[in-house]
Amino acid sequence: MNFRAVIAIQGLLLIFQGFFMLLPLGFSLYYGDDDVVPILVSAGITLAAGFLLRLLFRFQGELRLKESFATVSLGWVFAALFGALPFIISGYIPSFTNAFFESMSGFTTTGATILADIEALPHGLLFWRSLTHWLGGMGIIVLSLAILPLMGVGGMQLYKAEIPGPTPDKLTPRIQQTAKSLWGVYVLLSVVETGLLMAGGLNLFDGLCHTFGSMATGGFSTKTASIGHFNSVYIEAVVIVFMVLAGTNFALHFHSLKGRPSAYWKSEEFRFYLGVILFFTVLLTAANALAFFPKVLDSFRYSAFHVVSITTTTGFTTFDFGQWPAAARIILLILMFIGGSAGSTGGSIKILRIMILVKQVRAELKKLLHPRAVISVRVDGQPVQPRVVINILSFIFLYIMIFIAASLVMGLLGLDLDSAFSSVAATLGNVGPGLGIVGPAAHYFHVPMLGKWILAFCMLAGRLEIYTVLVLCTREFWK
Amino acid sequence: MNFRAVIAIQGLLLIFQGFFMLLPLGFSLYYGDDDVVPILVSAGITLAAGFLLRLLFRFQGELRLKESFATVSLGWVFAALFGALPFIISGYIPSFTNAFFESMSGFTTTGATILADIEALPHGLLFWRSLTHWLGGMGIIVLSLAILPLMGVGGMQLYKAEIPGPTPDKLTPRIQQTAKSLWGVYVLLSVVETGLLMAGGLNLFDGLCHTFGSMATGGFSTKTASIGHFNSVYIEAVVIVFMVLAGTNFALHFHSLKGRPSAYWKSEEFRFYLGVILFFTVLLTAANALAFFPKVLDSFRYSAFHVVSITTTTGFTTFDFGQWPAAARIILLILMFIGGSAGSTGGSIKILRIMILVKQVRAELKKLLHPRAVISVRVDGQPVQPRVVINILSFIFLYIMIFIAASLVMGLLGLDLDSAFSSVAATLGNVGPGLGIVGPAAHYFHVPMLGKWILAFCMLAGRLEIYTVLVLCTREFWK
Repeated sequence: MNFRAVIAIQGLLLIFQGFFMLLPLGFSLYYGDDDVVPILVSAGITLAAGFLLRLLFRFQGELRLKESFATVSLGWVFAALFGALPFIISGYIPSFTNAFFESMSGFTTTGATILADIEALPHGLLFWRSLTHWLGGMGIIVLSLAILPLMGVGGMQLYKAEIPGPTPDKLTPRIQQTAKSLWGVYVLLSVVETGLLMAGGLNLFDGLCHTFGSMATGGFSTKTASIGHFNSVYIEAVVIVFMVLAGTNFALHFHSLKGRPSAYWKSEEFRFYLGVILFFTVLLTAANALAFFPKVLDSFRYSAFHVVSITTTTGFTTFDFGQWPAAARIILLILMFIGGSAGSTGGSIKILRIMILVKQVRAELKKLLHPRAVISVRVDGQPVQPRVVINILSFIFLYIMIFIAASLVMGLLGLDLDSAFSSVAATLGNVGPGLGIVGPAAHYFHVPMLGKWILAFCMLAGRLEIYTVLVLCTREFWK
Repeated sequence: MNFRAVIAIQGLLLIFQGFFMLLPLGFSLYYGDDDVVPILVSAGITLAAGFLLRLLFRFQGELRLKESFATVSLGWVFAALFGALPFIISGYIPSFTNAFFESMSGFTTTGATILADIEALPHGLLFWRSLTHWLGGMGIIVLSLAILPLMGVGGMQLYKAEIPGPTPDKLTPRIQQTAKSLWGVYVLLSVVETGLLMAGGLNLFDGLCHTFGSMATGGFSTKTASIGHFNSVYIEAVVIVFMVLAGTNFALHFHSLKGRPSAYWKSEEFRFYLGVILFFTVLLTAANALAFFPKVLDSFRYSAFHVVSITTTTGFTTFDFGQWPAAARIILLILMFIGGSAGSTGGSIKILRIMILVKQVRAELKKLLHPRAVISVRVDGQPVQPRVVINILSFIFLYIMIFIAASLVMGLLGLDLDSAFSSVAATLGNVGPGLGIVGPAAHYFHVPMLGKWILAFCMLAGRLEIYTVLVLCTREFWK
């Protein structure tokens, strides 16, 4: 393997990250907080490390398959490592494990926090914390829509299956151009959301941070009570809309902005996505209205928000759903396994895979009655190859296997059943809050140290579609 | 659809059942219990109903695909309905719902009970209760090894995949002959186990009843404390051995009895099966030794028993595992989804499917590194067709979907998370005891009425490999 190339790219990414690390300084200086020096030092270290790697390792030739996997996985680990510096150096999160957990949670757009009192942090650090979401979300868009398909196989085949309608070459001919187009959509939507949030009374700082949290389907807030802090139906509505948009395939937004808004409705995945949200909103509203909220309207308000927040894998909260009846908590647990659309910033298994799975199961039932009939699964009218169906079903199983194995270890570490299962579901799915000791009213601080490393691994594996990370753990890879 | 044929076969099955219902009378008379008349009346009603159906409906021609599905599903429902009569008429289980639940639990070899005090029942009823296990287990052997493959498709293809080594036509040329051979093995093993249990101090009644419970991987006991009642390492060892044998493909036993004992070790599924049991025994022993049992030997004794009992989907208990640490309960919950071998009396997803799934996931990881390589999953050296892999993966998903949907409904009915999830896992997998309010120290009596019907449906769906039952719920079927 060409390690030099892999390391050289890490250098480039660190330089990129180092410059972004300087952005929070604006808020630090404006609010006169005590985090100016720590942030400057962190940015300095990151930039220095980046330039050093660039000097020592020269990138030659093209990346082959193995190197692509290593580059992507390592890229996220490096980002999380250096992203943790401001927290450690400032002394606000002195433990390396905790700081790494928080940083990984940011870059993977998970939004699981170890902080008990978020308002205690200075503005610069909070801004950096939310910015990691936005950078991670941006990274995943590029990865899923521009780079991964080029890796061939897994990436390519999966990709073909995942973007049924508008393939990237249809968007624009060259990959760099595609990436730019999608970033453009991402930035544009971010600007609009920030404006709308500020129109609702949030200042620029809170507006930007919560925009980062929703557009990246991350979920870090600047408030301990998350979106619930503002207690505003308007803010909740804005955040709901932008979480839904962030969980949508960005290629659809691009087409829409180019004057083809019908692209949304033509996409079977998008219709299925809205259907899932609608169905579970009604179900959760009913479950909560029956046994918790005396008013149906209250039940709808909080249920709709959390269905969207969990399905898109954002993880913002407006209520401590740990208090909700068992059925409501089961629904939220189920939603943690669905996730956003392909080509969105949302994580977890993803809508398209779930949709193909449902279609496949229905096809099997039909086949049982018509043994000789050839019944193929179709998405947007196009048949999906058996090869792709097997790939998708295998992916979901690998996901479930990791979920089970990690939950078991969390149980061995002393977590109760609810907390063990939900902490893994929430990190593997890049959601954030879970149930039990990691519920919305709590945080991940009390999870044992080894558990935090396992959950951080889950975040990474979930964010990079499992295979990318797991392939590094095979003997085959290192041969 | 040829309803007449379907009903006519039900008549035949009821006559069969009616005669078996007379067997418990021996114990009723011997022990002088008060259940002689109720059992006689029940058997009379069942026989009369059977003969009436035979008179009214004549079986003409051959069964087609649809009729096969209807016959099998309806057969189990009729068996459970008439099997409930002795409980209702005797007044020992006066509620129809409870009696049906207990009877369905028996015939599906689940072993979930609504009885709080099992010793309070007279011997005849207890014997009938255990006998339903044995009849259900016998039925499933015939079904999975002789009848189902003839239905074509689903059955056929799945079957081909499931019995990699010895296919039934290799056993003996004709199906009736195959069924007889396997029943022979079943009866022989049952006689041996009863003898061994009686050598350990059990009387004929307890010996037979616990043999029925283990050979059918059912789990009904004549004691409220299940096998734990005897507090004997010898009895536990005998039961462990026969649960393992009952969870093995019966075709392997047949080959072994014909002088080819190497058949066991040649079967990849059998090796995987033993591997799973061994792995989880070590894991559970460790988890319990760390946090519950002061002595490792005690931990091993109880852990080994429950790993075998749950993996084979028997459900006998020797300890209230509801008290065990979270990790131990998570392990047991995982085991509920594994199940016995194909062609055994064990339920749940089944070892062979899990094995093919694991191989498929590993193949996908390899493909990621060698995009152009053709890597096919092999069982016993034979490649498994992609079509079969898709069928198996779809089955597991359907299983998981039903698990999730039913758990959600149990949550809506007011069960806590542990109880909701485990009650469905334990009934769908034909295991028996779950966690929480349906744990080994408790029973299913307090589950709401609607919940009992849903769980009874889960038992049936789980027992008949989901598709057989679910296909009846499609519009396609009734067209």
